[in-house]
Amino acid sequence: MLSFESDYVKSAVKEILERLMEHREEQMPGYGQDSCCEQAKEKIRAACQCPEAEIFFLTGGTQTNMVSIDALLKPYEGVVAAQTGHVSTHEAGAIEFHGHKVLELPEHEGKIHREDLQALLERFWQDVNYEHMVFPGMVYISHPTEYGTLYTREELEGLSKLCQSYGIPLYLDGARLGYGLMSKDTDVTLPVIARCCDAFYIGGTKVGALFGEALVFTKNNMPRHFLTIAKQHGALLAKGWLLGLQFDTLFTDDLYFAISRHAIEMAELLQRGLKEKGYTLYRESPTNQQFVLLENEKYEELKKEAAMGFWEKPDKEHTVVRLAVSWATKAEEVQAFLDLL
Amino acid sequence: MLSFESDYVKSAVKEILERLMEHREEQMPGYGQDSCCEQAKEKIRAACQCPEAEIFFLTGGTQTNMVSIDALLKPYEGVVAAQTGHVSTHEAGAIEFHGHKVLELPEHEGKIHREDLQALLERFWQDVNYEHMVFPGMVYISHPTEYGTLYTREELEGLSKLCQSYGIPLYLDGARLGYGLMSKDTDVTLPVIARCCDAFYIGGTKVGALFGEALVFTKNNMPRHFLTIAKQHGALLAKGWLLGLQFDTLFTDDLYFAISRHAIEMAELLQRGLKEKGYTLYRESPTNQQFVLLENEKYEELKKEAAMGFWEKPDKEHTVVRLAVSWATKAEEVQAFLDLL
Amino acid sequence: MLSFESDYVKSAVKEILERLMEHREEQMPGYGQDSCCEQAKEKIRAACQCPEAEIFFLTGGTQTNMVSIDALLKPYEGVVAAQTGHVSTHEAGAIEFHGHKVLELPEHEGKIHREDLQALLERFWQDVNYEHMVFPGMVYISHPTEYGTLYTREELEGLSKLCQSYGIPLYLDGARLGYGLMSKDTDVTLPVIARCCDAFYIGGTKVGALFGEALVFTKNNMPRHFLTIAKQHGALLAKGWLLGLQFDTLFTDDLYFAISRHAIEMAELLQRGLKEKGYTLYRESPTNQQFVLLENEKYEELKKEAAMGFWEKPDKEHTVVRLAVSWATKAEEVQAFLDLL
Amino acid sequence: MLSFESDYVKSAVKEILERLMEHREEQMPGYGQDSCCEQAKEKIRAACQCPEAEIFFLTGGTQTNMVSIDALLKPYEGVVAAQTGHVSTHEAGAIEFHGHKVLELPEHEGKIHREDLQALLERFWQDVNYEHMVFPGMVYISHPTEYGTLYTREELEGLSKLCQSYGIPLYLDGARLGYGLMSKDTDVTLPVIARCCDAFYIGGTKVGALFGEALVFTKNNMPRHFLTIAKQHGALLAKGWLLGLQFDTLFTDDLYFAISRHAIEMAELLQRGLKEKGYTLYRESPTNQQFVLLENEKYEELKKEAAMGFWEKPDKEHTVVRLAVSWATKAEEVQAFLDLL
Repeated sequence: MLSFESDYVKSAVKEILERLMEHREEQMPGYGQDSCCEQAKEKIRAACQCPEAEIFFLTGGTQTNMVSIDALLKPYEGVVAAQTGHVSTHEAGAIEFHGHKVLELPEHEGKIHREDLQALLERFWQDVNYEHMVFPGMVYISHPTEYGTLYTREELEGLSKLCQSYGIPLYLDGARLGYGLMSKDTDVTLPVIARCCDAFYIGGTKVGALFGEALVFTKNNMPRHFLTIAKQHGALLAKGWLLGLQFDTLFTDDLYFAISRHAIEMAELLQRGLKEKGYTLYRESPTNQQFVLLENEKYEELKKEAAMGFWEKPDKEHTVVRLAVSWATKAEEVQAFLDLL
Repeated sequence: MLSFESDYVKSAVKEILERLMEHREEQMPGYGQDSCCEQAKEKIRAACQCPEAEIFFLTGGTQTNMVSIDALLKPYEGVVAAQTGHVSTHEAGAIEFHGHKVLELPEHEGKIHREDLQALLERFWQDVNYEHMVFPGMVYISHPTEYGTLYTREELEGLSKLCQSYGIPLYLDGARLGYGLMSKDTDVTLPVIARCCDAFYIGGTKVGALFGEALVFTKNNMPRHFLTIAKQHGALLAKGWLLGLQFDTLFTDDLYFAISRHAIEMAELLQRGLKEKGYTLYRESPTNQQFVLLENEKYEELKKEAAMGFWEKPDKEHTVVRLAVSWATKAEEVQAFLDLL
Repeated sequence: MLSFESDYVKSAVKEILERLMEHREEQMPGYGQDSCCEQAKEKIRAACQCPEAEIFFLTGGTQTNMVSIDALLKPYEGVVAAQTGHVSTHEAGAIEFHGHKVLELPEHEGKIHREDLQALLERFWQDVNYEHMVFPGMVYISHPTEYGTLYTREELEGLSKLCQSYGIPLYLDGARLGYGLMSKDTDVTLPVIARCCDAFYIGGTKVGALFGEALVFTKNNMPRHFLTIAKQHGALLAKGWLLGLQFDTLFTDDLYFAISRHAIEMAELLQRGLKEKGYTLYRESPTNQQFVLLENEKYEELKKEAAMGFWEKPDKEHTVVRLAVSWATKAEEVQAFLDLL
Repeated sequence: MLSFESDYVKSAVKEILERLMEHREEQMPGYGQDSCCEQAKEKIRAACQCPEAEIFFLTGGTQTNMVSIDALLKPYEGVVAAQTGHVSTHEAGAIEFHGHKVLELPEHEGKIHREDLQALLERFWQDVNYEHMVFPGMVYISHPTEYGTLYTREELEGLSKLCQSYGIPLYLDGARLGYGLMSKDTDVTLPVIARCCDAFYIGGTKVGALFGEALVFTKNNMPRHFLTIAKQHGALLAKGWLLGLQFDTLFTDDLYFAISRHAIEMAELLQRGLKEKGYTLYRESPTNQQFVLLENEKYEELKKEAAMGFWEKPDKEHTVVRLAVSWATKAEEVQAFLDLL
């Protein structure tokens, strides 16, 4: 069975598994106070060109969004996000469960527009009843977005300036950050993100790790007692070094970037093949997720051979599927899928 | 200064104040376990033609929405409401603060459409990823809505049936219920509401009381230990008899309906006058709130003589204001306002 | 039926009821932005000799504790209180419901001892695992306590200094504050409380008002956007002027103090009578609550004529009851009760 | 450096690491819907002799307690636990953060007594004010306790019956369950636990796994939509198969029991050595944690060679340390430590 239904169906890069094996006799202090974590942080700081970055490792994306957003917001504040943002739609309401409204903006290919954000902020602060409303306390973006799209450097800088002028943090969900950074179509680098965002996370679960995300605070703004805050959310791993070890490995010799580049190549192979075979791409995505329009019949046929992500039904006769490649996808697998078409 | 900015600028009907005076030497048990509350409940049950109704008195509208919605929902559920619903916009995020997402539907003159609700519910339950999303656990409507509009009996029955078929409660926010029931344009009565809704509240704060709302559960569905739940939300009044006394008074000799009818007459007087003077009603409202389009200059001029509610700016030259009349508005006051135009 | 079961069985002082009547035609802005509230605040500031005090009116004691404690604590902090503190025992877990642990200290006649508090704080900060524990973020005391006892000025100053040295606020629950201030045995005045405490509330519900508590922040430390915080907790009264009007009345011509003094006189009358008749006072209380040991038989007999608060059963043969007098208790009522003994 | 400071300083048993290596090319569905999880569950059901058990894998102990307790309690309920219970002391208030009070009972060597529990439950339900208090909604015990002690079968059955008679679940925290089950002094088996408890977890993090706990519901009582509940708490691992793989390995050929038995042997070796050298055991523990009284000087000296857990200072001259052995401790390490004494 071919597998394109998501980018977390495989284990981890072999370097991580090998290092785990090598590490089996080591004694490590708990809760991330270990040398693996320290080394990983040092390497991430360097990659971000942000020597003052404070970094905390967590186990998954929803958890990372939930803990960091809850920690950065005041109780009466909400987080602004695209209607299609992961926090708005697919985190089982974890943000609201922790007390905060997601203030939704229209999405434009999965992204929010500076103008819409500005309008929301102006409207709020000019409303005579603003004290009876949820305060917009931070801005959430995902990069790549849930549609695989990317912000440009200019867009990021625009959002960043706007947030700064309102004194609210800009937070970037980088569950698939590697695939965004290695896209051919981008002028956004890790240092650009570190400069524009007040906090963001570098996704491991979908990019080469067994699990784990590196949450980065870039402006000396890690909330005080963040370890306790994480613990209180059930998000503090006893053997925190497991996270450090994985990120240390991923940020050694640019491995994170190399495996992400491979995924982009696979995505291009897939995209090219689809176009050649006359298929319609439902969204133009420069990253590892591709959205294809299929006739229902074709969809049913393909499902027998390949796992795909159901996306939506634009009309009765068609189905849009998401095809996700990853660091683990092989060229043969893409070819085998194309041969089915 | 004329006052049309809201329907809670005045104290209470004189019957309530007089009864308070008469009552000053009485000794009353605490927390609503008193005879005033019992009598009030009996009268409300009769008015609703719902002998099994369970009733709980609370002090304000946001509090009532917050406690009842939080009590009716499971932790992983959210409440469906119009984008313009009070819970969506003007309760400082009290629903989210208590852990639940407000799942917003488009508004149609402040109301939700059965079709939109049905689409949302179908989409949720057909989504293969529904377990990662917020479950639609109940439906919130306001009647009159925030725009002064009303559901028809048929619409209410339609929503009710739909909710039933999905096994989720229909909840009606009746902050201004009296004004809705006494509108000339409605076929919705209190018994209709009691039959269609699983829970609703009869607003006192805006309809003749000093403060207080009567929360009614109509289907033997008051959450267990509701008194403790209210207490835990800081919503249990020590001298609960104050609420019982007010509702007992309002539901004696149909006072609640009589004072609401008066407000409707004042609204009609105002509406008629506005139309005669050539003003544009921004929304057609059959209840106590009227929305008028004013030229900015006129608005500035009027503001000196009359308090009005700012609503929105549809364009640079105009302002929409909300004019609220109430049980306490006098015909002379309406006339005085019309004379200013 | 004689009534000594609690101090909130009666309505309000006649001055408040009369003022309500006089006020019935007034138009008042909502949410406490009115002149009654302003006047009440001014008078409370004067009574506290604390011109910079920030004051917010709420409707009940549990609500006031819940909102203020939740607003003053950071999410990972708890509130230190006596095991018998109202927040520890009789608020249906409202503090925990809002996310904070009550860190319990042993009670000494309802009070906490400085030494115990110091030990708790030292132990916490010296614990190598403190990051995995709940941070002691503020201290809650009640005055009078749940046992009717009072802190001395020296004790208050001691607690205050200790809190200051740890940088955490001292909060005083003054549900029955008037009765404490008018006790014959106290050297604690309102200015002393304002000086020693970072926040406290002056109880109205049990001391002459229909309902309402005046929450006072004394050190320019009212949490930002407190109105929104209150709203979010369902604790913002639309007709906030009702609270202002009551406190304005109570703090005009020292009415609050005069009615409290009367209650103390009634308590003394009761205490003297009990002692003369040979009854054992279970606790020595210098305020309006008296705790008496009764033989079970006597208790059953008395219950037919007088409502009393069950307190506890120290052994099989005896029952301890709480007798609460208040601003509304008459000398004849006390005498009638004594005659039953 | 010798390491006895905790039982989670080492990685995982080699069988798990090897299986991870073998598994690296597999494609697995997300969120625990995979064959590894299914197999692990089947084996755990068999080991528990509880074919109807429902099992959910989570990543850590605090997380497991937090999610399961929050899911099992109603909002107005609290969990009864020993004052020294992990949930009471060392989880950063995660239970209260999620809205529930921990109702503390006195500890007896880390355990709660049936009599104390019965008294608490009786007192609550007989209290005329119980509606204003936190309802005792479940009972938490740890086995082994935080002091390494164990309940007897009779004690467990007694607690179980008592809980049943009050209709509340009994929950057992088995962070170190293996070490309890393999103790020489116990008559408690896994089937006994499954019979007596409504829910419990089998600890992996401290017993051979990299991380992970298996939460077991034994009475067809897993809360509905538990996956969504976990997700909402940030506790749903994308690659859930990582947890299944580990528990499948641990419950193949009784590996979990074998490695636990080894730890018990190491504990006995240590205990015997300490006694022979004349050291005082501060607590008698039949499991993997040993508590030793040291003179301060000796403590300082030992600290240079061996990591130990600081426990408390019973007086100025002495320190109590906790020595934890585990599945990973070698006899040579114990001997090397004893040689230091």
